[in-house]
Amino acid sequence: MHSSWIGYEQVTLLDGFWQDRQSINARATLRAVYREFEATGRFRALKRGWKEGKFERPHIFWDSDVAKWIEAASYSLRHRADSEIERLCDALIEDILAGQRADGYYNSYFQNCEPDAVFTRRQDHELYCAGHLMEAAVAYYETTGKRTFLDAMCRLADYIEKRFVIDQDTAFATPGHEEIELALVKLWRCTGEKRYLDLSKHFIDRRGNPPEPFFGDMLPAYAQSHLPVRQQFTAEGHAVRACYLYSAMADLALVYEDTGLLEACRALFSNISERRMYITGGIGSSYRGEAFTVDYDLPNDTAYAETCAAISLVFFASRMLCLEADSRYADVIERVLYNGFLSGVSLDGTAFFYKNPLQMTPRLNERDVTVSSRGDVPETTRLRVFETSCCPPNIARLIASLGGYICTRTDDTLFVHQYISARIGEVTLLSEFPASGRITLKGTGYRRVALRIPGWCGRFSIRMNGAEIPYVLERGYAYLECNGNIDLEAEFEMRVQAVESHPLVTQNAGAVAVCRGPVVYCAEGADQAVPLSALRLCAAHLDATEEYHPAYRVYNLTVNGLARTRQNALYAPAVENETAVRVRMIPYFAFANRGADDMKVWMPKA
Amino acid sequence: MHSSWIGYEQVTLLDGFWQDRQSINARATLRAVYREFEATGRFRALKRGWKEGKFERPHIFWDSDVAKWIEAASYSLRHRADSEIERLCDALIEDILAGQRADGYYNSYFQNCEPDAVFTRRQDHELYCAGHLMEAAVAYYETTGKRTFLDAMCRLADYIEKRFVIDQDTAFATPGHEEIELALVKLWRCTGEKRYLDLSKHFIDRRGNPPEPFFGDMLPAYAQSHLPVRQQFTAEGHAVRACYLYSAMADLALVYEDTGLLEACRALFSNISERRMYITGGIGSSYRGEAFTVDYDLPNDTAYAETCAAISLVFFASRMLCLEADSRYADVIERVLYNGFLSGVSLDGTAFFYKNPLQMTPRLNERDVTVSSRGDVPETTRLRVFETSCCPPNIARLIASLGGYICTRTDDTLFVHQYISARIGEVTLLSEFPASGRITLKGTGYRRVALRIPGWCGRFSIRMNGAEIPYVLERGYAYLECNGNIDLEAEFEMRVQAVESHPLVTQNAGAVAVCRGPVVYCAEGADQAVPLSALRLCAAHLDATEEYHPAYRVYNLTVNGLARTRQNALYAPAVENETAVRVRMIPYFAFANRGADDMKVWMPKA
Repeated sequence: MHSSWIGYEQVTLLDGFWQDRQSINARATLRAVYREFEATGRFRALKRGWKEGKFERPHIFWDSDVAKWIEAASYSLRHRADSEIERLCDALIEDILAGQRADGYYNSYFQNCEPDAVFTRRQDHELYCAGHLMEAAVAYYETTGKRTFLDAMCRLADYIEKRFVIDQDTAFATPGHEEIELALVKLWRCTGEKRYLDLSKHFIDRRGNPPEPFFGDMLPAYAQSHLPVRQQFTAEGHAVRACYLYSAMADLALVYEDTGLLEACRALFSNISERRMYITGGIGSSYRGEAFTVDYDLPNDTAYAETCAAISLVFFASRMLCLEADSRYADVIERVLYNGFLSGVSLDGTAFFYKNPLQMTPRLNERDVTVSSRGDVPETTRLRVFETSCCPPNIARLIASLGGYICTRTDDTLFVHQYISARIGEVTLLSEFPASGRITLKGTGYRRVALRIPGWCGRFSIRMNGAEIPYVLERGYAYLECNGNIDLEAEFEMRVQAVESHPLVTQNAGAVAVCRGPVVYCAEGADQAVPLSALRLCAAHLDATEEYHPAYRVYNLTVNGLARTRQNALYAPAVENETAVRVRMIPYFAFANRGADDMKVWMPKA
Repeated sequence: MHSSWIGYEQVTLLDGFWQDRQSINARATLRAVYREFEATGRFRALKRGWKEGKFERPHIFWDSDVAKWIEAASYSLRHRADSEIERLCDALIEDILAGQRADGYYNSYFQNCEPDAVFTRRQDHELYCAGHLMEAAVAYYETTGKRTFLDAMCRLADYIEKRFVIDQDTAFATPGHEEIELALVKLWRCTGEKRYLDLSKHFIDRRGNPPEPFFGDMLPAYAQSHLPVRQQFTAEGHAVRACYLYSAMADLALVYEDTGLLEACRALFSNISERRMYITGGIGSSYRGEAFTVDYDLPNDTAYAETCAAISLVFFASRMLCLEADSRYADVIERVLYNGFLSGVSLDGTAFFYKNPLQMTPRLNERDVTVSSRGDVPETTRLRVFETSCCPPNIARLIASLGGYICTRTDDTLFVHQYISARIGEVTLLSEFPASGRITLKGTGYRRVALRIPGWCGRFSIRMNGAEIPYVLERGYAYLECNGNIDLEAEFEMRVQAVESHPLVTQNAGAVAVCRGPVVYCAEGADQAVPLSALRLCAAHLDATEEYHPAYRVYNLTVNGLARTRQNALYAPAVENETAVRVRMIPYFAFANRGADDMKVWMPKA
């Protein structure tokens, strides 16, 4: 049964965990990202007439940073007027419009630096930037009603169609970094112009058919160009590229009722969520290629788990939910949102992780002490900007549009996928998530309501008009007849649980993680009396104490553990040298907000 | 109290663990290495008149490979006549002698390929090769009594003295890869020519004084050139370079009674053995620079732990033993010999590991599936030769000269450091090591015997002439008065033990290793009913069963463990899903002799 998201524009977040985040995003993050982008020259790049020394040399992916900022600002402005942000947005768009070529082409790098190299290098992010500009134009138009930017990006899409479909005179056939495929679907939805949907389908059908080389060390699979997409059943290569592609595949599977695409998407989603995803929802475990690797390869200390990859998985899963109401998709979205996505931004909204490791030992970052260059080591604290600073505006746009990830609907059924306090059209959802599993849902307009039963939830109760009522449970959703008048209360039991991973995850052998509802916890060194590596967790008897943390809007935990007493020798017989201790744990998303520190998600089981 | 090694030339191994190894070394390893070196052009490089296309382009370190082979052959010939090996040896030496320049200089690479670049590049191994040639010449002379090679290498030393000390017209002041320093000490001992000792001291005193740059990415500390050696107290940089240097420092500390050098050596040895050494005796944990990193950084799967580094640690520790009879040095030698050194060679003596990881998951070697180049991954099986093939002949020369690492002596005291069956001058040591801790020692000629009490040994008994006698225990040695007539029996209890590492070794958090006497054990996948990563060890109740393995000459073990039963989900609540199993373990030194397989030394503690 297909359903459609009730878009962010029809949803207003209400007091709760995510409204706080959205407010910080609007007040702090948008401005923080703007400042850094301005300081690093990303906005000056939009000006024409660059010469060496005049201003910073534009970079091939800077347009995408600018576009994501505009997109985030547009979502944010929908629910929160901010004349300063609006003015900054308008000025950037003005520069883009002024820079667009008469034939519709736009790219600040190529026009400024290499005007003769347009569409000659697959790895150079031109179509990726174009896609982000289209997404931004759609968002800006939806919020402001102003068409100029949208029209301009339609002309860009037209030009791309001319070159890649009609003239076929480009040096490569499909984007080196997917993104435009899903953007073109948005452009079609916004304008009704079917050619944009066809262009998306063209890129999808052509991809890997035949295989198309990438660049340098990277094999075709790095950019998902190794096989026709309908024959791709395992998630390969650069994780963000991959899930942006899969998102568009899912879009087209729906529009065209393309079962080949649907089957591939299902298989890819299973492969990711059952074999290649961190417990935090992070994906792409290797920094080499920022890529998926092999099944069950999930190293904790060297986890790449890029924030953008987590976001791309939300995009993919959210599109799968429209295709089929199966809670595995919404469970993954929830897992990502509360963990590997949210860890990407500091509590104050102004600093960011690109990589989201599940174990941190800052002193080991110094291991290459006799080599002047460093191996790939994770940042130990969040940074304000990166050279490749895709994640900060990506975080901003997801948080600003988060209302669009709560409910889908069919003609007669409301699906509640995420328990986020919000007014969703005629319905009001109040939720204490993730602090507790209590929710209420009130409103009118649907014959049926389908509530997701979270995968972590063992026991739950649902009452309508104060009484328990019968429901049908199917693929993780409880379907309730409400006949146009919704007055529901539900409680999903949130227990503190020790969780194990599949036995083939060698990196987690003998280890457990602690979760409470959707939130994954970690231990930081500062909170313990002994080094983290001296601790084990009493998985079978955690005996958790919960302590509410107002800034986190969720509980910190203390659980039972064993601490090894002092041993000075490098190696010594294992004796009964452990004493019972209480181990303090905080939500993973909050780690490294008190400075660089040791951190672990997976800890040995006592 | 200083003592001197009773050299390999006065020691004959008797039936036992190491005699087997020495025999395989003489019969198989020497020939296997020779064949590969011949096939790869290492011997043709000794010929003059190389031109592109004429034969393989010589390589800057090939002379050292040839030299170590000659050295190994010389040691081996001492106790086991082999006319074929002797003939091959002589032919190689003939080529070297024919190639030596009239001024004494010799290097097959520089003379063939870059005659004008002599002593211009610190990183190019010239003095390293020279040192190995000197060691080879000493060994060859000691065995054969033929002086020509020795004399030639003295002329090479003279030439080096002229250039580096007298004329000081070279582009660098000290060797980029240490080795010649310890070789010059040997040359002095063999010839009595004090200038060689002085030249060694010159290089030692000059090193890092002031700091001397290395090359490329590598900082001065990579080649131990960051500080004057007497101010070096932590082991830094390339591990083989480091311990070759420290070996020479220990030599000179003894000869010159140089307390500055002695203090540095003690600190360096402590730093290595108490903070930077694998339980196998492997050192140099990082492939980046093949280097020491920081304290307690001992990753298992990416362990570099080069076989040559293990050997270099034996060299260093053995020299420290001459300076002071402290069992910590002999314990480390034993740890290296039975584990991280011996793992470097296959049971049949013909294939070799360069890296000796403590955990192996062959399928994870495929993790860079979308990148055409691979990150650094360990070989999963031993190879016959490497591009940099330093380890195979280094293994051969240590095994061939192993008799020289059993006992030291002073005027009146015999120190027994390693329990290896052998006739050592007038004394016969019979040992069941490592299968059991029983030894007998008979002979004449010493007023006192000092027996090392191994660090792994909790209980032991010593009897003289059938009766327990009093002894003094000091720094790990039991000193026994025997008044010229030795008739000792001792038994060192060998229990199977679970061992823990220092709590700051994050990579071994919650894990134990299993040891029995000096032998470290590992589990291989092929021997278990479930994947290795599904197993934990019952450290407190191992209840080990021992099964003698004739080829290993030691016991395999089965110990108590817990196996996780099947869990298909990637993440699931930790339930009581473990069942008791017996875990089969083999000596670490024997791993990967039955094909590539999963392997673990450190396993989670149940």
